[in-house]
Amino acid sequence: MQLGLVGLGRMGGNMRERLRSAGHEVVGLDHNAQISDVTTVAGLAEKLESPRVVWVMVPAGVTDATIDELAEVLGEGDIIIDGGNSRFSDDAPRAERLNKRGIGYLDVGVSGGVWGRQNGYGLMVGGAQEHVDRLMPIFNALKPEGEFGFVHAGPVGAGHYSKMVHNGIEYGLMHAYAEGYELMAASELVTNVPGVIKSWREGTVVRSWLLDLLDRALDEDPELADLSGYTEDTGEGRWTVDEAVRLAVPLNVITASLFARFASRQDDSPAMKAVSALRQQFGGHAVHKS
Amino acid sequence: MQLGLVGLGRMGGNMRERLRSAGHEVVGLDHNAQISDVTTVAGLAEKLESPRVVWVMVPAGVTDATIDELAEVLGEGDIIIDGGNSRFSDDAPRAERLNKRGIGYLDVGVSGGVWGRQNGYGLMVGGAQEHVDRLMPIFNALKPEGEFGFVHAGPVGAGHYSKMVHNGIEYGLMHAYAEGYELMAASELVTNVPGVIKSWREGTVVRSWLLDLLDRALDEDPELADLSGYTEDTGEGRWTVDEAVRLAVPLNVITASLFARFASRQDDSPAMKAVSALRQQFGGHAVHKS
Amino acid sequence: MQLGLVGLGRMGGNMRERLRSAGHEVVGLDHNAQISDVTTVAGLAEKLESPRVVWVMVPAGVTDATIDELAEVLGEGDIIIDGGNSRFSDDAPRAERLNKRGIGYLDVGVSGGVWGRQNGYGLMVGGAQEHVDRLMPIFNALKPEGEFGFVHAGPVGAGHYSKMVHNGIEYGLMHAYAEGYELMAASELVTNVPGVIKSWREGTVVRSWLLDLLDRALDEDPELADLSGYTEDTGEGRWTVDEAVRLAVPLNVITASLFARFASRQDDSPAMKAVSALRQQFGGHAVHKS
Amino acid sequence: MQLGLVGLGRMGGNMRERLRSAGHEVVGLDHNAQISDVTTVAGLAEKLESPRVVWVMVPAGVTDATIDELAEVLGEGDIIIDGGNSRFSDDAPRAERLNKRGIGYLDVGVSGGVWGRQNGYGLMVGGAQEHVDRLMPIFNALKPEGEFGFVHAGPVGAGHYSKMVHNGIEYGLMHAYAEGYELMAASELVTNVPGVIKSWREGTVVRSWLLDLLDRALDEDPELADLSGYTEDTGEGRWTVDEAVRLAVPLNVITASLFARFASRQDDSPAMKAVSALRQQFGGHAVHKS
Repeated sequence: MQLGLVGLGRMGGNMRERLRSAGHEVVGLDHNAQISDVTTVAGLAEKLESPRVVWVMVPAGVTDATIDELAEVLGEGDIIIDGGNSRFSDDAPRAERLNKRGIGYLDVGVSGGVWGRQNGYGLMVGGAQEHVDRLMPIFNALKPEGEFGFVHAGPVGAGHYSKMVHNGIEYGLMHAYAEGYELMAASELVTNVPGVIKSWREGTVVRSWLLDLLDRALDEDPELADLSGYTEDTGEGRWTVDEAVRLAVPLNVITASLFARFASRQDDSPAMKAVSALRQQFGGHAVHKS
Repeated sequence: MQLGLVGLGRMGGNMRERLRSAGHEVVGLDHNAQISDVTTVAGLAEKLESPRVVWVMVPAGVTDATIDELAEVLGEGDIIIDGGNSRFSDDAPRAERLNKRGIGYLDVGVSGGVWGRQNGYGLMVGGAQEHVDRLMPIFNALKPEGEFGFVHAGPVGAGHYSKMVHNGIEYGLMHAYAEGYELMAASELVTNVPGVIKSWREGTVVRSWLLDLLDRALDEDPELADLSGYTEDTGEGRWTVDEAVRLAVPLNVITASLFARFASRQDDSPAMKAVSALRQQFGGHAVHKS
Repeated sequence: MQLGLVGLGRMGGNMRERLRSAGHEVVGLDHNAQISDVTTVAGLAEKLESPRVVWVMVPAGVTDATIDELAEVLGEGDIIIDGGNSRFSDDAPRAERLNKRGIGYLDVGVSGGVWGRQNGYGLMVGGAQEHVDRLMPIFNALKPEGEFGFVHAGPVGAGHYSKMVHNGIEYGLMHAYAEGYELMAASELVTNVPGVIKSWREGTVVRSWLLDLLDRALDEDPELADLSGYTEDTGEGRWTVDEAVRLAVPLNVITASLFARFASRQDDSPAMKAVSALRQQFGGHAVHKS
Repeated sequence: MQLGLVGLGRMGGNMRERLRSAGHEVVGLDHNAQISDVTTVAGLAEKLESPRVVWVMVPAGVTDATIDELAEVLGEGDIIIDGGNSRFSDDAPRAERLNKRGIGYLDVGVSGGVWGRQNGYGLMVGGAQEHVDRLMPIFNALKPEGEFGFVHAGPVGAGHYSKMVHNGIEYGLMHAYAEGYELMAASELVTNVPGVIKSWREGTVVRSWLLDLLDRALDEDPELADLSGYTEDTGEGRWTVDEAVRLAVPLNVITASLFARFASRQDDSPAMKAVSALRQQFGGHAVHKS
């Protein structure tokens, strides 16, 4: 089927290729004219036959502006899909705004990173059944070939909510492996840490795709010597903790993983300076001067 | 090759079958005479040709007694393997005791649970290269068919150490999924929680064998209504945290996972009673009476 | 000086008494006519001489409505103080609304609980210097007699912000004592747990007012047998964690204390059910049925 | 009464002075001849009248050697007290060794740091009632003047156990204040962080001796600019977590405080390097090179 696709970056660009390989007609729009199929949203709307379907795959900061711009050139019966990393709470207001113009809205959490073009993308979809039905050919082309990788998670917002939780879990999984890696690296006994990690890829309880990637990273750099521990976070982890607080759900593991990222970006910890100051005050403990 | 195998429980029994399917001769000994091939350790020793190899697969509490009993009937050039869940710090003293009699020792962490018979077992081995070389036919039969699932992790103790860390990671992974599951279940938006979990099995960053098992559990009981949250722990998690403390490695995620198990077994938390008492004292806050 | 006081509950009622003991004229308004000095906000405004000062001490849920009602009857040069447990982010919008009418605004975090009438209240104030200056006679009467207990923390919002952090710290302090209490209670060695707690009240590093209260609670109920661990939380703890997330500050201790309260209110943990389900799946571990 | 005191460092030296001010006769022994009253343990034993009482106040690493040396020159009816930071599990074996020679043993946890000479020391005592009774004049001189500061916590070991828990709590308390300090310092609203801390010293729920010390530290260095966050730990925190693991008590707050100290001593976190490596692998996320 025919699909408009706004945003042809690392994710969007790969998705266009995967969709085209599956025989779909994709009209892509990007700031970068060299990779763009059309030059304006108006041009995009013109190029698509009614009822139109436009997938938005842009950075979270410009999603609302992009959607509002599209709403001006789309109309009754068209559908906009947001496949970016929006906060779930932005979805319902958006759907309502679009609904007033007769435009449908789906929110889709997309997982798989740079590997998605080859392996397919995990898709978590929120929205009305009729809109999901219309998009199934596209979803089927984007998802992996097996029986999994797609879910209609609930009403508008449920797609991004599921993706948020997915990423929260991802934080926890990554950190669990990372802690085990650090402990083995600190021990005197395990002399072949990368070998142990590699061995776990089959037969063990901890085997996973992330473990495969950790093995791959250690193949390239057995002591991770070229990397710094400074680690960004990208929104979903924070939203997960905000939801934990809102819903009174104790998420100790995921929160600890997020906080470890925060700490990784501090040159020195103000909290630990305060601890250090206290120790000096009551115990005359020798402390390190900065 | 020929192997003595002491302990034919859930793990040992399955291993005997996997080894026999691969053409090895296994002489099994168990308390349960009905499944035993011989009736005493002396009988086991007699049945094996020198140099003998005996794999011990008994509960951690009786491993040392079993090994000491075996040491009496084995001798120069024989090898004992402990494949049970021993604490790594028990391995070196054991190896030394056996070494005085000319008996070799290998410690093997075995992962894979009840699925190992079919999928193969993840094996992490500690000990001398010459002993590992002797056992390779056995290891090759037990491990999965692919290129992974076996590692010679280091000297005596390194096998159980790696397995300990494996299980520590396992605690963290399980808890990360569990937290995500609980958050989705608490949200109003995700109306198809088991469907979301199932969808993650392909294409996503969080796909793993444990996720497959969570999906399987939800297939059987979509709301986990038949289960209690009361959860045991089996030693390796505690040893992992003890090692974190000894080596000054901050393991927030794995420790939180272990502590959550401790908390799951408390009817009421004495700590929270103290918090409740304090709130009552300073604020006149209404508290719940037990 | 003269002060209007809206809300004469546990906190407001005690504050009125402390202010009157200090020679101030307090005109109180409450839903409860029996303790009220006037019957309506209009009546309150009439009873006060210009420029008027009205302190609002009502539950967080009705603060904005109360302030808006007051704004109708107050005017140029008057000041409204919110001493309740408002979220700091509500303060700036409020101040702006009032500012349009020429009414000043101060936000005051008030600590001390039911003990404040006797010991004085800890006051953290946000707002303009001129408004703070006008209120100093009132602040001086409410605060403890010593040199501490009052701070002008910053502009509008800083008072409630400081109080929020105060309460976040309070969560952590309470939980630290509570954990130590639980560990001693679990040990075989310490046969006189309440005695140890009592002894800490002088000479030790951990002495504090909260410790005094814990001792008091144990005097009344040495095993806290009459209390349940079920513990509410009242907003500030959650806001503290939200701020940690917003500002990327790793607050492991305070967050763990908040999450422990969440957990204390669960009959069974959905997360631990999921862990239990996973253990059953991979290991055939015996699990507890609900 | 007469007391031998071995170890005249920061703690022991101050204790000698406090005891002498109270009229007791203290015979001190130290490596440093200039501050020592006798030059050998034999000389110490000679100088004391039977039944002798010797208080050992030496670094944990040499406590056993010191006690064993003393046991050679003491005898039936004498008492040795260990007031150092021994692990509680060392106490029972020591008491048994001494008991064979008819020598009594008390373990005393001593809190108060460098302030103890002036304020008195918090004392937590483990051992037999008859030995405690003999020492009461000494305990009364060392403890603060008020009604608190001393407890007979239980049998041998209970004194050091209580002190261990005291220090575990101390870790948690310090970290709770430290986190609150960091959050306020990160906020845009609180412009007078040291002022807020100072104000909390009276009237608030969080007032404590540690808070007084934090205020003192901020008076000296309002932004803690001269301090590094690098923070040592001294044994008791680790033993507390080991006990939590052994007794299955969930100590999230105290453990997080200990782990934060571990992290403060790492130049870069191996775990965060692994997280960084994973993000690079799956997402093509830009990472920081070391």
